[in-house]
Amino acid sequence: MEKLFAPKSVAVIGASEQRGSVGRALLENFINSDFRNRVFAVNPFHESILGLKAFKSVKDIPQEVELAVIAVPAKFVPQALKECAEKNVANAIIISAGFSEIGEKALTAKLEKIIADNPETRVLGPNCFGVFDGKSRLNTTFSETKRTRLPQPGNVSFISQSGALGVAILDWMSTQNFGISKFVSYGNAMGIDESDLLEYLDYDKGTKVIAMYIEGAKHGRKFFEIAKTVCRKTPIVALKGGVSEQTHKATASHTGSLAGSAEVYRALFRQTGIIQANDMLELFSFAKILAGEPLPNGSRTLIITNGGGYGIISADSVIGNGLQLAKLGPESVERLRKAFPDRVTIANPLDLVGDAGRERYAVAIETALKDKNVDIVMVLVLFNTPAIDESIVEELVGWKKKAKKPLTVVSVGSEFTEEMMKRLEQGGIVTFRYPNVAARALKALADFAEFRRENNGKSSAKAGQN
Amino acid sequence: MEKLFAPKSVAVIGASEQRGSVGRALLENFINSDFRNRVFAVNPFHESILGLKAFKSVKDIPQEVELAVIAVPAKFVPQALKECAEKNVANAIIISAGFSEIGEKALTAKLEKIIADNPETRVLGPNCFGVFDGKSRLNTTFSETKRTRLPQPGNVSFISQSGALGVAILDWMSTQNFGISKFVSYGNAMGIDESDLLEYLDYDKGTKVIAMYIEGAKHGRKFFEIAKTVCRKTPIVALKGGVSEQTHKATASHTGSLAGSAEVYRALFRQTGIIQANDMLELFSFAKILAGEPLPNGSRTLIITNGGGYGIISADSVIGNGLQLAKLGPESVERLRKAFPDRVTIANPLDLVGDAGRERYAVAIETALKDKNVDIVMVLVLFNTPAIDESIVEELVGWKKKAKKPLTVVSVGSEFTEEMMKRLEQGGIVTFRYPNVAARALKALADFAEFRRENNGKSSAKAGQN
Repeated sequence: MEKLFAPKSVAVIGASEQRGSVGRALLENFINSDFRNRVFAVNPFHESILGLKAFKSVKDIPQEVELAVIAVPAKFVPQALKECAEKNVANAIIISAGFSEIGEKALTAKLEKIIADNPETRVLGPNCFGVFDGKSRLNTTFSETKRTRLPQPGNVSFISQSGALGVAILDWMSTQNFGISKFVSYGNAMGIDESDLLEYLDYDKGTKVIAMYIEGAKHGRKFFEIAKTVCRKTPIVALKGGVSEQTHKATASHTGSLAGSAEVYRALFRQTGIIQANDMLELFSFAKILAGEPLPNGSRTLIITNGGGYGIISADSVIGNGLQLAKLGPESVERLRKAFPDRVTIANPLDLVGDAGRERYAVAIETALKDKNVDIVMVLVLFNTPAIDESIVEELVGWKKKAKKPLTVVSVGSEFTEEMMKRLEQGGIVTFRYPNVAARALKALADFAEFRRENNGKSSAKAGQN
Repeated sequence: MEKLFAPKSVAVIGASEQRGSVGRALLENFINSDFRNRVFAVNPFHESILGLKAFKSVKDIPQEVELAVIAVPAKFVPQALKECAEKNVANAIIISAGFSEIGEKALTAKLEKIIADNPETRVLGPNCFGVFDGKSRLNTTFSETKRTRLPQPGNVSFISQSGALGVAILDWMSTQNFGISKFVSYGNAMGIDESDLLEYLDYDKGTKVIAMYIEGAKHGRKFFEIAKTVCRKTPIVALKGGVSEQTHKATASHTGSLAGSAEVYRALFRQTGIIQANDMLELFSFAKILAGEPLPNGSRTLIITNGGGYGIISADSVIGNGLQLAKLGPESVERLRKAFPDRVTIANPLDLVGDAGRERYAVAIETALKDKNVDIVMVLVLFNTPAIDESIVEELVGWKKKAKKPLTVVSVGSEFTEEMMKRLEQGGIVTFRYPNVAARALKALADFAEFRRENNGKSSAKAGQN
């Protein structure tokens, strides 16, 4: 399936110059993108499209084609796919809609037969946005590049049953210091389904964590078995659409396949080890922390802060989300008491007070990392105070490199704070803006660590190895 | 108290040139700010400070002084305040720390006596960050202006028991299309306390909604009585710090006064009508929606979307947060069926599908606003689709102006989407990035509307009058 994400050559079937058409958006995205491999345009009615020679059929292309992206009207799709199979194209992404999701049974059956008869040409779609690859920069999502940014390369892969939502989230992720390995919108899943994708991403070295938006699995049993195996190696975070009886019905008219009930999926997620997110923000904060932090031995969290109130609301979030507040060991208490002025109360939250600079942070973090009573270190920094200078970034990044426990930074502010947070992220630290979001993510991390301890050794696990 | 927020003249007592000092930061902020009234520097050891003539005492200033900002070491504060009283200064903000919060009983008692003996000089603080006024641009918060942005003028006032947290939040708010009327960090509340501030802000025409961060009220009974009265006119949203037994203890060493238990405050909030926020994000999304939207007649919400999956996760959030999904009346269903192509299923979420432009949105919104079965309209727009052009902003703003129901927009993305959202905000629409955050805010709005219906007529209410 490698060739689906980094093909040496791509044919755009249905490439077009017509403004507003998918065929044009697709080809323009290729022309304007950082994808560096060969792209061919296929259109039987034109000699050339947007400056590229146009071939009448994919079969006329005088070279091997590893990926075909099909964006012709639904009724022409079977023929186009057939030609791909004859050309021995490895993968075909069918962007076109107009099949089972609108009740087109005959056309759907016709397409299904071609897919079944030609197993050597694997099909993604139809009715999907296709693929974006962080590394090769392949992008078949036909989103307007003027309006849509794509995230940087990273180690989280994201598969989405909903294409439009998926692309909107990709666009948003580009603003969140968030890196993507592979994105796949798989639509009606007539060929490759979510289970195949999980299996492939588990094997993929570039993917450390899988995030997914799912309304209903194509093949329930297959999904269960594969997810169970994958979770032992690669953590999966899933946002399930349609969790109430009412929304459950709505998914029927959206993706065509009736989604399973909320309870069925909750049980399935629990049994397989899939981490369920309750909203978009959780989906990505969970994926982010699983990709960036080692698994903790427990949930005892130490909060280090330079703002009293910020420490208190963070502690409320830690407790409110089911983590524990760590109690420092006697040696740590002794050490901190000696190192800090009297106005610093040795407690949790550990309030270093407003005039704390990088030195006090260094002592506190070193102590927390050594103390066996602390499983997780949550560092709050208000960057507006004069005692904090930019060198705090270097200090925190240094400790993060040595840390064998989760060490995450939480801060909120405008440009200056955002710039510091970006540098922390570049240094390998997972950052959050809101204490409650951070606490929920840390809880998911601690729960997953517990699941792992109960279910298998750590030998084959991708997470927990920072 | 007007003079606390827009004084004609200010004296900075303890103005200094020393780098890193509060006295310097304060004066620099005045010099660099948009605050246009007279500022005097007071320092007995210098002739001039940062180019301003320095007076030995506030009493030497040859003009009336409406506000004194005191930033001298704690032990000199009583004398400085005494001189302010002799000069008949209307308000004094004591920034300096070092009183009851670190157990300095004698000094605290001394200061208390001067405050009691001179009621005509009202005192804010000590141990506080003071005041920021969105309109006059008065800013006594001594935050580094290079690092801290201040929000635009608006109709939400924010009072915070924690100064550092308050300033960090102000800084963050500047990035959130969020407008502030008045911000007050009141610290130890030795003179003006949170109840006095609520009473004043209730009377203040610029304040439509009050947001507050509170660990514990200075005078419980007074707070209860005043909050009860204020909530009948001005909605109050409160984030309570220290809601668990453990964090409750931590507040003692932070603000000195032991905070009431979570249960006591939950009951107090319920009885007075204060809307409790569970985290920072709720505090501001609740304040934002109360300031920008009319009160709904119920919680029946219609979701309009151009992305199926986005509609479904939003419906999950609506139901999950205790709102109801509206059921369109038969006339509405009939109307929409005629107006839309077959591929648009008339349901809730109302998925206008990917090729929907402003026209389809217009028909859907008009129908929703007319339909008595709909109390709240939640409009989702994925701006990445080619069918949406910038004119959608004008369309939505036009409907918002006519709407007598809450009409809010939810969208997520990068630059282009953010630009569209900003324009919507400028047009008076409350926008959200995450469906779950929007749904929680709408639920708070619906609950507050119910509280109002049960507790008083609408005649005197500030909210609900857009």
